Parts: sequence; structure tokens; C-alpha cells
Amino acid sequence: MSLLVVGSVALDTIKTPFGSVNNALGGSAVYFSLASSIFTKTRVVGVVGSDFPKRHLTRLASKGIDIEGLKVVDGKTFRWSGKYEFSLNEAHTLSTELNVFKDFRPDIPKGYRDSRYVFLANIDPDLQLDVLKQVRSPRLVACDTMNYWIASKKPSLKKLLKKVDVFILNDAESRQLSGEPNLFKAARSICSMGPKTVIIKKGEHGSLMRYGKSIFISPAYPLEAIYDPTGAGDSFAGGFMGYLSQSGRCDKQTLRKAVICGTMVASFGVEKFGTERFDGLSSKEIRGRMRAFDSCVKF
Amino acid sequence: MSLLVVGSVALDTIKTPFGSVNNALGGSAVYFSLASSIFTKTRVVGVVGSDFPKRHLTRLASKGIDIEGLKVVDGKTFRWSGKYEFSLNEAHTLSTELNVFKDFRPDIPKGYRDSRYVFLANIDPDLQLDVLKQVRSPRLVACDTMNYWIASKKPSLKKLLKKVDVFILNDAESRQLSGEPNLFKAARSICSMGPKTVIIKKGEHGSLMRYGKSIFISPAYPLEAIYDPTGAGDSFAGGFMGYLSQSGRCDKQTLRKAVICGTMVASFGVEKFGTERFDGLSSKEIRGRMRAFDSCVKF
Repeated sequence: MSLLVVGSVALDTIKTPFGSVNNALGGSAVYFSLASSIFTKTRVVGVVGSDFPKRHLTRLASKGIDIEGLKVVDGKTFRWSGKYEFSLNEAHTLSTELNVFKDFRPDIPKGYRDSRYVFLANIDPDLQLDVLKQVRSPRLVACDTMNYWIASKKPSLKKLLKKVDVFILNDAESRQLSGEPNLFKAARSICSMGPKTVIIKKGEHGSLMRYGKSIFISPAYPLEAIYDPTGAGDSFAGGFMGYLSQSGRCDKQTLRKAVICGTMVASFGVEKFGTERFDGLSSKEIRGRMRAFDSCVKF
Repeated sequence: MSLLVVGSVALDTIKTPFGSVNNALGGSAVYFSLASSIFTKTRVVGVVGSDFPKRHLTRLASKGIDIEGLKVVDGKTFRWSGKYEFSLNEAHTLSTELNVFKDFRPDIPKGYRDSRYVFLANIDPDLQLDVLKQVRSPRLVACDTMNYWIASKKPSLKKLLKKVDVFILNDAESRQLSGEPNLFKAARSICSMGPKTVIIKKGEHGSLMRYGKSIFISPAYPLEAIYDPTGAGDSFAGGFMGYLSQSGRCDKQTLRKAVICGTMVASFGVEKFGTERFDGLSSKEIRGRMRAFDSCVKF
């Protein structure tokens, strides 16, 4: 089924103890759609500047990603620069240049308004709400956010949460939003704000999902070599939404499998720098890793 | 089958944001045996002072724990005092009075020397080695350690590791010992030091086990209310070893089930202060929680 993502498209400069890249293709909508497009046709809404290398557009299109909604405007593309310490646990932002992303007002192309699955990547919650006004009758809406919006735009975020089905956020954000250090309490509290399903991402420790009154806990895939965790949360969301959209279902069992699928896709993504690992990544390879994962958690 | 534990018996003073206890029954051998005795007869070797309340001895004995090896000597019992912040993630030691535990030299009673399953709780690795000289032909030996011994007695610890089957330690200790921030690499490195099986405990994030070339990952049981994490690692080990000892097997499938059993027992232990939750805790209750856990991790 049709899947729409609205988010950032960026040029990332990343340093880890294992190497670095300059002005590499990045951004939430990019990581998301590279992941989701393995499973389903994905429509992207975002903005880049006139400096955005054409080869990146070609690369996205070559994967069957619909980039009609990716506007190219005068000015410079959003740039993010960050580094990771040896433990790779936390990104330290070195600089953020919003550039053309500063005035981003998502304009959903007519041909996208019938999208059945919608992912609102991390942008201003007022803009996320604005997107929802433009899509006709989505079957499932998921969103992400960040600490900045929780601190500065909580009322808008809370308004948004009443309109989404799945809220995907990380552990620190869930604690910040709920005021609860215990993640299961945090998930319960956030569910009471609106979304029937809350997924809390815990990085190397996996994730937990609360839907209705049920809890699903998944460890991360056991990786000995992680090169670059940038975008892991967005590729998790892409794998999750791609799986749901491909299956055309949203029942509890499918949601669980979608979490595992997102976990596997994210585990591939961090094996190389930036978005490099998505080149040539097939659903067959992902299914193979799912089986390997299964043998690591069965008892 | 017969299970022996050698470790500390203490009087603990604990403060958490939810309350406090003074001079409560504690120590690694106590948490371990309260957990393991749910599954199998457990023999305890340790030392207490003449101030040790008799009711604690009565309580241990009433659970079928064999306390013949628990020496009462002149002097004061080992006392530990610690507090936890709101997140409950880390114990901050306020004071440690070793007292009679300072001169502890484990003397294994003759009737214990045929023990088939042996757990060497966290004590000086030279003493752990000394215990192994006194037991005849154990089928499975497991041990724990702590940051202090890794820093101050690494050669003795490494000598010990060549003689144990299962090494149970926490994430920080595994990183300290191996020099590897990645826990799967740390587990591989520690396995190469001797033990065929390494279990790394990650607190609220569960545990991972490496045996041979296989990996088993288990999340923790989802708890909304944790009152006191003291002793969770030792009750995990108690549940793990108790399960193995009861089953009489050490194959891979049994090791996995034993990890889950340890995880469940530890999850009960932290629901009340000190060792309180072990009163009345039955194997039936643990099996019930295992089924609930299963429904939280299946996909």
C-alpha cells in the first residue's frame, strides 16, 4: 500500500572512531525511505537547496523512491555535523545549519494525498499537524519527534499525539515527555496522550512497544561491528512502516513482526557509514537476518 | 543435584527514593540461596559475626537452605550501606564495613565437597580458587566477580577463569576486563580467557549469553515498579544455577531456559525491599511469570 514520509533531507558530516564522511546523503526522510523502499513504494516530501548533488536524487529514484514531493529551492541544503565517541552510544552535534529546511512548509502533492500509511519524521509538530490536514484518509499514521520539540512545543505535540496511531521515540525522549524514569510507565503514560501504539527505541538495547495493554520487548540484533549509528532510528521506522505497508495489515501480530523488521533493517544500516549499507540490501538478506535473530532469542 | 554457593552474608542498609531498610539480611550468598532454594537444596559457605540475628539463620534454614557451612565467629557481621537515585540504575555505596568478612577463608565442610554445581559469588579470586581445590568433581562451576578484583587481582582472576564453566558478570565489568566497549566483542574476548559460557548482565536491559559460538539475548521482565535492585545479580545467578541443578543438565537449551529462570527470579526480587519478596515465592509463581514473559517477546 502507498507509504508517505515527510521529513528532512540533509548533507551529513559524521566522525566516528572508525572514520568520517563529509556532506554525505542524510536526513530522516532519506534514511526512512531507503529502508522502507526495500518493502514498498515510498513517497518523499522534503526540501533541498540548489547545491544538492544530482547524483543523490538519481540514487533515491533508482531505488523506486518517488521524489516528486522533494522540492529543490534556491539556497543551501540542510547540513548536520556530528561525532561519536568510542562507545557510539550518543551523537554529539557539532553543528546544525538549517538553511532551506528552516522555511520548510510541507506541501503534499495531489498524487500523494491518498497515501494510506504516513510517517511524520521529526519536524516541528505544527508542520506534522499540517501534513495530516492534507492527507485524505490514512489507514495508519506514525510520527517521531525530538527533545527540542518536547521542550519548546509540547502543546502542539500533544495535539498531534491525539491524531496519530503509532508514536516512535527514543528512551530519553519518552522520559522527558512523560516525566517517568521507568520506560514501561513512560509508555503507559504516553499511550494515554493519544497514540494506541508507542514504540520506545533503546539503541543497542533494542526497543519496547506498548499497544493497548500489551507489551512487546525486542533486543537489538547482536552486532560486533557498528561503524556509524546515524539514522538508525529512522531506518528502524522505515523498516517498520515498510513492513506494515507491504503487508496491508495493522494487527498486533503484524505490528510485532514490523518491529523485528525495523530492528533488522536498522542493524544493517549501522554496519557502514551514512546510507552506504542500503545499496544492494535486499529483503532476502533481511529475512536471513531475521532467522538468525530468531535463533538468538528463542528459549 | 547438590548446589553449593560460597559468598558474603551481610547486614544491608539501603536507601531508595521509595523507602529504606536498616541492617536487613543481605549479601551475595544470601540472595543467591534464597533464589536457588526455590528449585534445589542449596549449601551455603560464608561467615557472620556474633551480632548476626538468629532469626536470619532460622529464616534461611526454614527454606531448606543448608547453613552448616555458615560460620558464626566473634566480631561484627559484614555491613554494606548504599543508596539509589530515582532511576535505580546504579548503587552508590555509602559505606562498607568488612568486619569478620575481612578474614574469611572458605572452609568447605566435608559433606559439601561432593557438590555437583558450584557458584563462587563475588569474593577474592584467590579464595575462589581455593574453594575449587576443596570440591571433588563438580559438574559445573560458575563464578561472579567485581570491578575491584578486575583492577587489583587480574592474574588470579584469569587463573580462575581457566577453571570455571560459566562466568556471570555485569556489562561494566565485562568492558573493564576485556577493554571492549561492544558487549558481544567483550563476551567473545572473555570466552577466550577460559569459560565456555559467559553471561553479561545488563540490569533493566536484560542479559546476553555466549556459549561456544552461540549468542542468546534476553530482555529483562517488564516491570513498572522496582523498589530495590540490591541483590538482583545474585538472585539471577541463584535462579540460573538452581534451574540447572534441578534439571541435572547443562546443554544449550537448558542454559537458555536457566537464563530466563534467573531473569524471572531477579524480577521478583526487586519488587520489594531487601530479600523480602523471596518469602512465599513459589516455583509456580515463577512459571506463571515465564509464560507472561514469553507472550511479551514472541513474534
